[in-house]
Amino acid sequence: MSKEITSREQDYSQWYNDLVIKGALADYTAVRGCMVIKPYGFALWENMRDALDKMFKDTGHVNAYFPLFVPKSLFEAEEKNAEGFAKECAVVTHYRLKSDPNKKGALMVDPDAKLEEELVVRPTSEAIIWSTYKNWIQSYRDLPILINQWANVVRWEMRTRLFLRTAEFLWQEGHTAHATAQEAVKEAEQMLEVYADFAENWMALPVIKGVKSESERFAGAVDTYCIEALMQDGKALQAGTSHFLGQNFAKAFDVKFSDKENKLDYVWATSWGVSTRLIGALVMAHSDDDGLILPPRIAPFQVVIVPIFKGADQKALIDARVTELVKELKTAGVRVKYDDNENARPGWKFAEYELKGVPVRVAIGARDLENNTVEIARRDTKEKMSVSMDGLSQRIVSLLDEVQQAIFNKAKDYRDAHITKADTWAEFEKILNEKGGFISAHWDGTPETEARIKELTKATIRCIPIDNVMEEGVCILSGKPSKQRVLFAQAY
Amino acid sequence: MSKEITSREQDYSQWYNDLVIKGALADYTAVRGCMVIKPYGFALWENMRDALDKMFKDTGHVNAYFPLFVPKSLFEAEEKNAEGFAKECAVVTHYRLKSDPNKKGALMVDPDAKLEEELVVRPTSEAIIWSTYKNWIQSYRDLPILINQWANVVRWEMRTRLFLRTAEFLWQEGHTAHATAQEAVKEAEQMLEVYADFAENWMALPVIKGVKSESERFAGAVDTYCIEALMQDGKALQAGTSHFLGQNFAKAFDVKFSDKENKLDYVWATSWGVSTRLIGALVMAHSDDDGLILPPRIAPFQVVIVPIFKGADQKALIDARVTELVKELKTAGVRVKYDDNENARPGWKFAEYELKGVPVRVAIGARDLENNTVEIARRDTKEKMSVSMDGLSQRIVSLLDEVQQAIFNKAKDYRDAHITKADTWAEFEKILNEKGGFISAHWDGTPETEARIKELTKATIRCIPIDNVMEEGVCILSGKPSKQRVLFAQAY
Repeated sequence: MSKEITSREQDYSQWYNDLVIKGALADYTAVRGCMVIKPYGFALWENMRDALDKMFKDTGHVNAYFPLFVPKSLFEAEEKNAEGFAKECAVVTHYRLKSDPNKKGALMVDPDAKLEEELVVRPTSEAIIWSTYKNWIQSYRDLPILINQWANVVRWEMRTRLFLRTAEFLWQEGHTAHATAQEAVKEAEQMLEVYADFAENWMALPVIKGVKSESERFAGAVDTYCIEALMQDGKALQAGTSHFLGQNFAKAFDVKFSDKENKLDYVWATSWGVSTRLIGALVMAHSDDDGLILPPRIAPFQVVIVPIFKGADQKALIDARVTELVKELKTAGVRVKYDDNENARPGWKFAEYELKGVPVRVAIGARDLENNTVEIARRDTKEKMSVSMDGLSQRIVSLLDEVQQAIFNKAKDYRDAHITKADTWAEFEKILNEKGGFISAHWDGTPETEARIKELTKATIRCIPIDNVMEEGVCILSGKPSKQRVLFAQAY
Repeated sequence: MSKEITSREQDYSQWYNDLVIKGALADYTAVRGCMVIKPYGFALWENMRDALDKMFKDTGHVNAYFPLFVPKSLFEAEEKNAEGFAKECAVVTHYRLKSDPNKKGALMVDPDAKLEEELVVRPTSEAIIWSTYKNWIQSYRDLPILINQWANVVRWEMRTRLFLRTAEFLWQEGHTAHATAQEAVKEAEQMLEVYADFAENWMALPVIKGVKSESERFAGAVDTYCIEALMQDGKALQAGTSHFLGQNFAKAFDVKFSDKENKLDYVWATSWGVSTRLIGALVMAHSDDDGLILPPRIAPFQVVIVPIFKGADQKALIDARVTELVKELKTAGVRVKYDDNENARPGWKFAEYELKGVPVRVAIGARDLENNTVEIARRDTKEKMSVSMDGLSQRIVSLLDEVQQAIFNKAKDYRDAHITKADTWAEFEKILNEKGGFISAHWDGTPETEARIKELTKATIRCIPIDNVMEEGVCILSGKPSKQRVLFAQAY
């Protein structure tokens, strides 16, 4: 093996970094806290983006693009939102550089080019979008507005991790405007379903759908819906959020509409987003000590074909067979790569594609040609099998479906085995320390208890599951009465 | 007509703004110089982006994503590039806001959160990308690198115009690294061809391929190739550029590779880009006084169907026929919209879709049903025809091709009629004042003469055409000897 991967047991965090960097998904840059998403990682993101984008369009949304900058006065209009993001804002204060008279070849900020009003680099776009919607909405006929944007956002983080927490990241943010609260809530719920569908059926990532507690809510939201996933180290990861914003932003930006009875009211809003953080979730949910394991539906390459040969004659024969196979696979919509690079040995290629998580590997040698077979290897289970060339492309297509399902099932089994009930504080602490995962426990519903639990254990309330069963009980910490269990976990 | 469009004759510049805003392509925002690209405009951009992206991938390129911010010390490394962009840089100096103690509810920049080193919001990404390539390139085996990125960039402009010149805009920027100068030049030339192909065959925009004079070259380039288009007011517009960067950035960032003989050399580079500015070019090249005229290949909707009926019975019959037609058109890959909104009259819809430039309109009424016909209207020529329902979808598909070609031909005829030779300064000035367009004239090859001509007439050298015929002559201004004509024009 050319590239050493730290094992999960040895150092989980280093294992993650090794996968991201050696798997060529992303890399550090000269800019503090900002990463480069490398071509292989970006191809993965493109597949995720395209699938999501289609789902958004199928549910009636359209894309648009709003400015990167938010003037400070707009940014501060919705007070809670502003308060929530103020501490992590990159701020543009000047619009020009000039030659530094004290240092040849160097530039300095031109003090004469100070902006009258500072510009915040968007950490999220509610403010700039609602200040624009104000001009677009007069009557109920202008509603609903169902807009999404794919964009970069900046949240200044002191401690960063590739994909999981970077100063700049890519995401999509939906911003919708509605005539009624009911319609807006329905929209927020619909988008939660879309996210859950995407996570489970494309990323093979089982998620729990829920609602956030007040303390974990998006700044400026009335309700935050979320999907929560579980990583292999027993920590949870918030994989997507959908917010019912009530009339908060409409009030902040004075966006009113006249209804059919010509009565004026503030507009109702939602916003919802997922980001490149999902790539971090994907890496941590499925991969093993040999590298990435990517679900076929979003893998940049679903199949890699490696020839094993001696001399040009054998190579030519293999090439001819592979050309046919590649054509068949492409016709079937499979993303396939034929790696006949002669500067690398088959063994090196095997390790490389294992590291990169290509779901299915096909090896074909001289003896295979004689026997009319190939060797197929699954990345997820590492199973190898010799199979006939006849009907091979169909076989591969169904294998890809099997692999997709198997990766999901494995993650789901792990996740399901890591939702544990705790009925006493001692149990709660024991599960956290020894097993991790989600803990289903009673909570008295107060932010104070929630904060105290976080302080004591670093565990937070991940969500109150959507389909929660009502059950009388007593709070795990305070002993006060509780009407339902909620899900706690330590989280990314 | 509900929306008044200023005519070109009356006020060309206002005509353009009317089309962009009333055609729902873009709008102003609360951020100085920044626009919002509205859903209809963004759908157009998506079609352009997808077509270009496929062309980039077909020529071996992959996408990636690099940081938005460039630390000042990196930005200034390539001196000419830095000098070229320093005057239009948005600069991030702080990473936090805090409550303003003097103003309740207001925020202020936190002076304690000043960055040690300022961050430039990328006006272009050579600096950040080459500082990253340094870590990726050691040997000739690491070359070529053929990366493109789709991103937002910021260039602080004092006078802005929607799409044509905004502080923030969207673009793609290719950044490639090569082992030889020859290979890099070939790449730059190849991408010029890709741009010309896209402009002519997708945007129906005839372009002249050329090389820039030294004064018009990209800051940091050895050679800038460009495609130049002509707008209906006789002004030229640079529609795309492809730069051979030599070893300038490799030297600035010390990026060397060892060749097959183990000899170290600096890497050779190109960069190339087109932006949302192309949408401005599209609007100005084809549209008329009634609104936009969009080429079918990139139009958000290629066909709109409008029902004309009285009462629910007629509507139901029309619906049934249209459902079939829509299905057929979609199967044929046509982007079609059925507008059966009952709150708007057909006449209003006709004007609206004319304004929005939908290439083909189909109207279908009760009498059409009886006669087994529909009325088809072409947006470009305003021709109307009654055609049979039989084979209608095929008829429409070929009509879309015809329209695409006709729009191109019309723009090309106009452009060709506006390339005029001038052999004296008097002729040059007369053409500029009375006719506009490109002027083919001799130039002595010096930046001084070029600058003087610009000063006198605002005309600049748009390019030295790639396929220029060598021809002895004397400079239009200085009378000094010249070896070839170059193309002058006033430009956007």
